[in-house]
Amino acid sequence: MDLIIKNGTIVTSTESYVADIAIKAGKIAAIGKEFSEVGVEVVDAYGKLVLPGAIDAHTHLAMPFGGTVSADGYLSGTRAAACGGVTTVFDYPMQRKGNGILDTVESRKAMCDPEACVDYAFHCIITDLNDDKILDEFEAAVDYGITSFKCFLVYKKEGMMVDDATLVKILLKAKETGAITNIHAENPDLIDLNIEQFLREGKTSAWYHYLSRPEFVEAEADKRAVHLAKSIEAPLYIVHMADKEGLEAAVAAKVEGHEIYIETCPQYLEFTCEVYKREDGRNFVCSPPMKAQESQDALWHAIKVGLIDTVATDHCPFQSYEKDWGKDDFTKIPNGCAGVENLYPYMLSAANEGKITFNRAVELCSTNPAKIFGCNSKGSLTVGKDADIVIYDPNKEFTISVENMHSDYDHTIWEGKKLHGYPVKTFVRGNLVYNDGEFVGKPGIGQFVKRVAHK
Amino acid sequence: MDLIIKNGTIVTSTESYVADIAIKAGKIAAIGKEFSEVGVEVVDAYGKLVLPGAIDAHTHLAMPFGGTVSADGYLSGTRAAACGGVTTVFDYPMQRKGNGILDTVESRKAMCDPEACVDYAFHCIITDLNDDKILDEFEAAVDYGITSFKCFLVYKKEGMMVDDATLVKILLKAKETGAITNIHAENPDLIDLNIEQFLREGKTSAWYHYLSRPEFVEAEADKRAVHLAKSIEAPLYIVHMADKEGLEAAVAAKVEGHEIYIETCPQYLEFTCEVYKREDGRNFVCSPPMKAQESQDALWHAIKVGLIDTVATDHCPFQSYEKDWGKDDFTKIPNGCAGVENLYPYMLSAANEGKITFNRAVELCSTNPAKIFGCNSKGSLTVGKDADIVIYDPNKEFTISVENMHSDYDHTIWEGKKLHGYPVKTFVRGNLVYNDGEFVGKPGIGQFVKRVAHK
Amino acid sequence: MDLIIKNGTIVTSTESYVADIAIKAGKIAAIGKEFSEVGVEVVDAYGKLVLPGAIDAHTHLAMPFGGTVSADGYLSGTRAAACGGVTTVFDYPMQRKGNGILDTVESRKAMCDPEACVDYAFHCIITDLNDDKILDEFEAAVDYGITSFKCFLVYKKEGMMVDDATLVKILLKAKETGAITNIHAENPDLIDLNIEQFLREGKTSAWYHYLSRPEFVEAEADKRAVHLAKSIEAPLYIVHMADKEGLEAAVAAKVEGHEIYIETCPQYLEFTCEVYKREDGRNFVCSPPMKAQESQDALWHAIKVGLIDTVATDHCPFQSYEKDWGKDDFTKIPNGCAGVENLYPYMLSAANEGKITFNRAVELCSTNPAKIFGCNSKGSLTVGKDADIVIYDPNKEFTISVENMHSDYDHTIWEGKKLHGYPVKTFVRGNLVYNDGEFVGKPGIGQFVKRVAHK
Amino acid sequence: MDLIIKNGTIVTSTESYVADIAIKAGKIAAIGKEFSEVGVEVVDAYGKLVLPGAIDAHTHLAMPFGGTVSADGYLSGTRAAACGGVTTVFDYPMQRKGNGILDTVESRKAMCDPEACVDYAFHCIITDLNDDKILDEFEAAVDYGITSFKCFLVYKKEGMMVDDATLVKILLKAKETGAITNIHAENPDLIDLNIEQFLREGKTSAWYHYLSRPEFVEAEADKRAVHLAKSIEAPLYIVHMADKEGLEAAVAAKVEGHEIYIETCPQYLEFTCEVYKREDGRNFVCSPPMKAQESQDALWHAIKVGLIDTVATDHCPFQSYEKDWGKDDFTKIPNGCAGVENLYPYMLSAANEGKITFNRAVELCSTNPAKIFGCNSKGSLTVGKDADIVIYDPNKEFTISVENMHSDYDHTIWEGKKLHGYPVKTFVRGNLVYNDGEFVGKPGIGQFVKRVAHK
Repeated sequence: MDLIIKNGTIVTSTESYVADIAIKAGKIAAIGKEFSEVGVEVVDAYGKLVLPGAIDAHTHLAMPFGGTVSADGYLSGTRAAACGGVTTVFDYPMQRKGNGILDTVESRKAMCDPEACVDYAFHCIITDLNDDKILDEFEAAVDYGITSFKCFLVYKKEGMMVDDATLVKILLKAKETGAITNIHAENPDLIDLNIEQFLREGKTSAWYHYLSRPEFVEAEADKRAVHLAKSIEAPLYIVHMADKEGLEAAVAAKVEGHEIYIETCPQYLEFTCEVYKREDGRNFVCSPPMKAQESQDALWHAIKVGLIDTVATDHCPFQSYEKDWGKDDFTKIPNGCAGVENLYPYMLSAANEGKITFNRAVELCSTNPAKIFGCNSKGSLTVGKDADIVIYDPNKEFTISVENMHSDYDHTIWEGKKLHGYPVKTFVRGNLVYNDGEFVGKPGIGQFVKRVAHK
Repeated sequence: MDLIIKNGTIVTSTESYVADIAIKAGKIAAIGKEFSEVGVEVVDAYGKLVLPGAIDAHTHLAMPFGGTVSADGYLSGTRAAACGGVTTVFDYPMQRKGNGILDTVESRKAMCDPEACVDYAFHCIITDLNDDKILDEFEAAVDYGITSFKCFLVYKKEGMMVDDATLVKILLKAKETGAITNIHAENPDLIDLNIEQFLREGKTSAWYHYLSRPEFVEAEADKRAVHLAKSIEAPLYIVHMADKEGLEAAVAAKVEGHEIYIETCPQYLEFTCEVYKREDGRNFVCSPPMKAQESQDALWHAIKVGLIDTVATDHCPFQSYEKDWGKDDFTKIPNGCAGVENLYPYMLSAANEGKITFNRAVELCSTNPAKIFGCNSKGSLTVGKDADIVIYDPNKEFTISVENMHSDYDHTIWEGKKLHGYPVKTFVRGNLVYNDGEFVGKPGIGQFVKRVAHK
Repeated sequence: MDLIIKNGTIVTSTESYVADIAIKAGKIAAIGKEFSEVGVEVVDAYGKLVLPGAIDAHTHLAMPFGGTVSADGYLSGTRAAACGGVTTVFDYPMQRKGNGILDTVESRKAMCDPEACVDYAFHCIITDLNDDKILDEFEAAVDYGITSFKCFLVYKKEGMMVDDATLVKILLKAKETGAITNIHAENPDLIDLNIEQFLREGKTSAWYHYLSRPEFVEAEADKRAVHLAKSIEAPLYIVHMADKEGLEAAVAAKVEGHEIYIETCPQYLEFTCEVYKREDGRNFVCSPPMKAQESQDALWHAIKVGLIDTVATDHCPFQSYEKDWGKDDFTKIPNGCAGVENLYPYMLSAANEGKITFNRAVELCSTNPAKIFGCNSKGSLTVGKDADIVIYDPNKEFTISVENMHSDYDHTIWEGKKLHGYPVKTFVRGNLVYNDGEFVGKPGIGQFVKRVAHK
Repeated sequence: MDLIIKNGTIVTSTESYVADIAIKAGKIAAIGKEFSEVGVEVVDAYGKLVLPGAIDAHTHLAMPFGGTVSADGYLSGTRAAACGGVTTVFDYPMQRKGNGILDTVESRKAMCDPEACVDYAFHCIITDLNDDKILDEFEAAVDYGITSFKCFLVYKKEGMMVDDATLVKILLKAKETGAITNIHAENPDLIDLNIEQFLREGKTSAWYHYLSRPEFVEAEADKRAVHLAKSIEAPLYIVHMADKEGLEAAVAAKVEGHEIYIETCPQYLEFTCEVYKREDGRNFVCSPPMKAQESQDALWHAIKVGLIDTVATDHCPFQSYEKDWGKDDFTKIPNGCAGVENLYPYMLSAANEGKITFNRAVELCSTNPAKIFGCNSKGSLTVGKDADIVIYDPNKEFTISVENMHSDYDHTIWEGKKLHGYPVKTFVRGNLVYNDGEFVGKPGIGQFVKRVAHK
């Protein structure tokens, strides 16, 4: 054995129990008690929780958007991940007209590999089928370990949207090749209609960002995507669900037995659209925007009942000066907020406060994303899995501040948020990368996660 | 008094009772018994039903489509209407890019006026907002008596489709001006995707017309339109509903209290998609196509329960040689079938057989379209209304054949259909236009119906 | 002709129009214009509404209950009815163990006949099947004109409740004989459980009347009754619906096409359970009690959408001294409140204020009860029907007070309620019984309404 | 270590992986690989599945019913359990009027203890509250390890039914004390009504057992129980769910977040009501009876989707001569069938055939009953849990016959059923009790499971 974590309470998606974990060659070698400690590094986790590392299934690192690039590159983004207990991040390379999937992915992989502080995987965004040639590449992509694709149902003017026929082609080909399709659901025509009207009327504050894409704008696209996926019996994963009506449609389809997965994000669980009335409302601008209290309540309810599958971050921060571009015109604000370092602490704090169980937090942030996206060596503390482990101190109080975060951004929407309990150690395949407030890993330690095909 | 119809059973949307109707100057002057018959023409309707004339809210006369023009012009179309107990037809002038609403309507009015054998009204199809200038014309159109507009959510390649933003603009402006928006709901992208695939695979029979626009293709657009109308609280009228899932979405919205109206057509109540497997399947090609039995059952159920508002025909016949253009390629078949002369006899025969009440048949074919579309002088046998009256013999057996119809088409999908009961007289504002199998009116008798704004 | 009501606006359940009504021998002889007025009494209704008389489908006159008898006997109850525009009242004779239906009904008929100031009909309450002998009497009862029966699903200790098997037997036999079954739905076991607990805890104010039979107590019985009626496909009429959840279950069954009718009462539309916290809360005690705002909102919503069929009163007033018996113990308060004189004015005032249409008010209070309960000569202003007519002045302001009511009770829950518009004349079969605040009819003028079997 | 099971595929409710299990003192001491085998018994499970022992949450051993006693006593019943991979059985002692809970349980415990071949637990059936004195005993019962109670909503004439008020009292007290309430849901009045009618009409074959308690009879009680539990927010466990409509009501409540648990049985998943038309239909008589295909389909669907929580057997066999008592009168057939030895093999065979996953079979038959009913040391293969383990050979073909079963009954409804895969070894707390077709344990090895309070 290389390492023993002993005396902690192991938390899985279904149970909690006290036992020791023995790690060898980056894998969980055994779980039990009274292992021989001769020649082995021992970490005592007495009074602590021992959790599988989180998997943030939704980040945008070094993402070109709105005339700039998101503030966290692969190094700072994965460093922040490590310090928040995230041991695998999913990034979203975007295929552009004329390019292939593997082209797209490999060029990002080359950027990421030397910088990665935790393991990483890629969903590939498809924006153009290149006369269906892209579809012919799905099988190779799946073999390569890219078993999920994403479509924007929005960003029509930006040239990123796919129409319904393209979405259906992708859903069908993904189903055939064992991949799963992610969608960002908002209705582009309605947004453009609203923006046009607001600009004409001189309504340009951040509040109009929300009003240009309110609940029913998101719900329309959610319902349409669910309808299409159901009709052709293809699996669908809806990213960053933020509205009640769309959620209800997706839940109804799940209950009918359709393979619909629902992701939401901590920002939708913590904030409502009221933040857009704040002086610094532009810093909260992301798409979809935070919605009204009724939607937040519905999201929490679905999390408690077990009808939301994953929580991920849509991490895509921009610097203050970039956010300021839209001070007088909400359409100029780069869309996106920070989150990768806050995901696990936020959800575990909610568990610590009794809102959900710790098991549910683990399921949402680790076990489910691993299963849905085919990270077979990740997602649970089980013999044979990667030793991606977080030690969590339920008694540590923590207040989020840009000062104690490990990203490159200069502000955070989470500033001042108090958490009860906080991660104290993160291991990636047995390597300690975070220790009690400090990043202790090194860039390049993270590996590409070659995923396996969806059932 | 000019005319007394006596001894008949008057049927309204809510009750049936024996009384006499006295008519003066084209209006119903009194209902009672034992009116003085001195100097008055008297029609004895003993043993017959006396009904308000039907209003066919959906016809396409002299309609350019698929490289030709529909086989019934205004004369033959309204002549057939008269002989089927329809005393008002709604036609669909289509606004084209650059044209205005009143332009469009007036040029069709000029064509129709000298030929009309029954009264007529226009819904105006909007295909382009001309940089929103069209919206500015809505108020004038309503004042003119055009209180309904139609949008195609389909026919994208044909340049007739409106996108979601345009639909919303029209819904909002219609609501503001007291008009109501009709929509033809099918998803264009899915249809095009299917057609492209079928043509590539050499699947070109009429059966593939159905398979290129099956249930879920219509349902998607139904659900989207209902969602949008609900979200902005605007009234919506869905034409030719033909599928169960879309119907259920519309019904759910009605039950929630939203102002959603549902029209279906006799062809969806009588035929299923199985007809497309017939040798002459192309003759049944219309859009949306007939669907599977489950949808037909759902439509009848909704009719019985009272959740469908109107039955109209989508009358748009083509000649056999035109239908034959698509013998080897379903995409070349002009879309549309005959129906205006069959509407009322078909629904009344269903009543006569006990499927629905006669009151419900009257409500669906006359009272409701009058109310929804603001034909204030039409739709019921009430003192002060136009004397648009049908005398119906419940004991007359009738078999539909192209031989006994009064249109200009050379075949009918209704050939051979046996009906129990049949109209024997039709009066338009007190003028006898149809008598026992013969058209006895004259072109030009029909008048433009100036409608009043929707609540 | 005997009487002409001219120049008024005739309001039916579906339309409003200006015309004159000619009456002969108590029937509506003709509707039209410019009738000869020679030798005929003429009433000018210019600027007024002319409505069919209301039918209060739910009253308890001279009803023994709670150790006393309800404060309005047949004379005062029907006199009040006349003055509120009600031209037919339904009373509820109660069959008791060992007695037959016709026995029961005839003895009440004998009491009512000489006193009735308006027409009257009877539903018969069944409390015991007398070893199924009662079922054998259903056919004779229907022939006699008693085409509806009522079951209490509550009042177990009082010996009035029927169990589920008995209810099913009655539903089946009623269906077979063309009768319809009314039910009072509350769960007796839950009420008794609550009462026992509250008395033990010394909680005895009127507020505990509500808490002993809150929303879910009523909803349970509503849902059970709907389930049973649906399962055996028998028609069901739920009296005094007062809670949201039960309403939703009944509405869902209606939408599925089951023959479920829903009645609510003005008190549930006007008051909430908050009244039980008032000093005089005991005066508002009736069963079921008024519920929370959410239920009232749901009732109004269903009324607007058209999913509630009738509004009736459950008129069953008691004198103040009787209500006072329960000052210190809510279980000793006789259950019931006044209403028969307030029904039509209340609903018409709501129409006058724009909450519903006048047509809907007429449908709820007159047309629908006539149809559902087989009063074929009642319920609409149509040639051949009884001339039961109300003339309503939409501009008359009225404040309800025990002083201006025509019952024998000494207080009313409606005290101080302001109404916009009020009836000014009531005719029963052409006889003026109420004129501008004064009862001008005479006892005995009312006749037994021999009803016809339900479809 | 005492025992190592090596090379098998460990199956939990959430994952499957190859590892070895080391057992010490009846507990799972470690899971890993390459454990030292010195001085340890080793079982090689290569190519086999290693599963947690099943928990049959519903058996009736030595149960007095219908004038006799069920054919399996504690010895034969638990022996059969062991041979079917069931390592814990729940039995149902019945409290009778005047008796207490602990009295009741202890007398059965005394009978069971010396005979038990597997571990055992008790739910206690409550039939009478003894003037609420029984409620005062709930807390002591929970301390004793009895954390679940059962109510019959049926068997009114038999004196076992509780009314709604009693059910609510039990639900509330159970919730307060950390217990959970089980209910058998059928409507007694409807059954009695039907039986009375059938006997009167001479309809006495087994088919009328089904017709006397068809789908809607069960659904009524399911819906009522769900309504009551929801209303007072108390947890509810519905035993042997067998009908679609009741299932849907329970599922809807689960989706809303209410704590409703649903159990079904293998007989409802395998047979339909058609069996009652067979010559030997009486052998299949149990209550509730098997239902029509539509219900079976709904049950399987809910199992696949994850909306049913547990599968248990309602094991309650009777001998052929006892079943024959009802040859000419279905009301004389003792109700109940065999099943405890078939549960796990049946569900695992379904998994082996791909109907569900093995993980789901484990969840339904072991993990969920352990969690719901507080068997904290049971239900999963986790370090620290009891070594209740089944080794399953997925390649072993097996045909059920009374000859190869280990009960005392003389026939089985499962005769001839072919299974794919079968258990080859069962360990109870590390003790081998079943080996390849033979019972190898000994009576008395089974222990009482002291359960912990429900959350």
